[in-house]
Amino acid sequence: MADLLVVGSIGLDNIETPSGQVAETLGGSAIYFSLAASLFGKVNLVGVVGEDFPEKHRALLAARGVNTEGLQVRPGRTFRWAGCYDDDLNTAHTLDTQLNVFAEFHPQLPEAYRDVPFVFLANIDPELQLEVLSQVRGARLRVLDTMNFWIERKRPQLLDAMRSVDVVLMNDGEVRQLAGTYNLISAARYVLTRGPRVLVIKKGEHGAVMFSEGGYFVAPAYPLAEVRDPTGAGDTFAGGFVGYLSQADEPDEAALRQAVVHGSVVASFTCQDFGVACLATLDRATVAQRYREFSEFTSFPRD
Amino acid sequence: MADLLVVGSIGLDNIETPSGQVAETLGGSAIYFSLAASLFGKVNLVGVVGEDFPEKHRALLAARGVNTEGLQVRPGRTFRWAGCYDDDLNTAHTLDTQLNVFAEFHPQLPEAYRDVPFVFLANIDPELQLEVLSQVRGARLRVLDTMNFWIERKRPQLLDAMRSVDVVLMNDGEVRQLAGTYNLISAARYVLTRGPRVLVIKKGEHGAVMFSEGGYFVAPAYPLAEVRDPTGAGDTFAGGFVGYLSQADEPDEAALRQAVVHGSVVASFTCQDFGVACLATLDRATVAQRYREFSEFTSFPRD
Repeated sequence: MADLLVVGSIGLDNIETPSGQVAETLGGSAIYFSLAASLFGKVNLVGVVGEDFPEKHRALLAARGVNTEGLQVRPGRTFRWAGCYDDDLNTAHTLDTQLNVFAEFHPQLPEAYRDVPFVFLANIDPELQLEVLSQVRGARLRVLDTMNFWIERKRPQLLDAMRSVDVVLMNDGEVRQLAGTYNLISAARYVLTRGPRVLVIKKGEHGAVMFSEGGYFVAPAYPLAEVRDPTGAGDTFAGGFVGYLSQADEPDEAALRQAVVHGSVVASFTCQDFGVACLATLDRATVAQRYREFSEFTSFPRD
Repeated sequence: MADLLVVGSIGLDNIETPSGQVAETLGGSAIYFSLAASLFGKVNLVGVVGEDFPEKHRALLAARGVNTEGLQVRPGRTFRWAGCYDDDLNTAHTLDTQLNVFAEFHPQLPEAYRDVPFVFLANIDPELQLEVLSQVRGARLRVLDTMNFWIERKRPQLLDAMRSVDVVLMNDGEVRQLAGTYNLISAARYVLTRGPRVLVIKKGEHGAVMFSEGGYFVAPAYPLAEVRDPTGAGDTFAGGFVGYLSQADEPDEAALRQAVVHGSVVASFTCQDFGVACLATLDRATVAQRYREFSEFTSFPRD
């Protein structure tokens, strides 16, 4: 089992979905990633919170074995996000964003983090992603996520960061926007000729597809009778994906495929309840059980 | 190998997509179904055309072994449809519909058709679908497709027709509309408590899902670098699906899953070129080759 490093946002979220609402709940890309990846390995977290960050959230991270030595506490308030979803639960509408201490965030890796082999750069300013990459030494696998905001505003820096990683994770809308084409195969070619050897495209309720030297792989999403809150599903996917790879022998095609399915499996649990409620108590046996279900509902006889 | 029966529309289409355009090309649900299903078995076609229906189209059907004894020729013009697609190729916009001889169509099954074991009721007025069902004797498998137009205008008749079939095929938007819920699991429950034992939901570029007594099965769509024209993909899917089942020993869960994948495989060929251009020359070996590709790009190791 090898260690993981994540750099991303940590926030307090107000979320409203057709199933209900929650206020000031623990959120942020680094949090969903950490809780998901900690099912598979030791996670080292880098991020920033304000002085108002509740002790119970820190306790949850500790209980899940997440190392918070790289968690900065700054004077001021923690990052806050408020959002709501339409009935189809596919699109988050941001109602309010308060960057607070996150506005001045610069990732500083504790010395002990610099040799961590599995690095996840969550969806933050690509300039900060590059700052992180300049501080890590000889990572075995570097994975990057991003979003439309950076594609529009910091495209050159984002392309720089992409050139320096092994795997890019994006959602389908973002990869189409980045490549300027609707066709996902053309979009994947665009990304794979710019550095990364693997592209994983997250498609929400439609699952995920992976493009790599080994070819093409499709994994569905788990069919949930009720999606209560999809917030954090993409970062949870990333946590399951990188987390699984961190304990595999080699990140070869077989392991990458298993990692994509683990990403999809863990993300499905996040959608079952608000915020990190489901992730906070999830265990490996429950994940393994659902992985077997995936195997069952995607298999068909060869002719 | 058992025979198939299809009742549906036959038309001449004007189609415009980002890849180009074609005029007066052979189309209609019964045509796409027939050409796809004839890869697997003998298809008996019921439909109507006008006196202007080109001889070359009849020759193509004959060349593919489609029995046109049930093809009515009426005074007047053949059904015409004109449509175009946005860049994402997901939505067809109807520019013009001329029902012509199709307006007064009533399916009449030649005596030799009435014992055909595999029956496909393409997307036509559910009252006509019921007329067909009243004329068939002891079919082994009855499959029905429909669309939003009938859900809105002839809901009771559609529910009647659904009660009398084994399998319902619909696209995701339609099943959501019929069931009045966005969630596909809830929507599937709605359909499966109303007669059919199997529901196959077509999701276009996102593939297909099947709900049955055997559970849940997901198949992706084939990743095409260029979708030239998606017209008829859903009816082609139906032809591959029912066609495959017609030559299987039993329509059990394994055969149903193979049938869904065959539907997805054959539909992918339709999307590669305009109208029926690709289907018109497709052969079983090419289908089998792509079926093996599906097997490869969906498989992952069990843990």
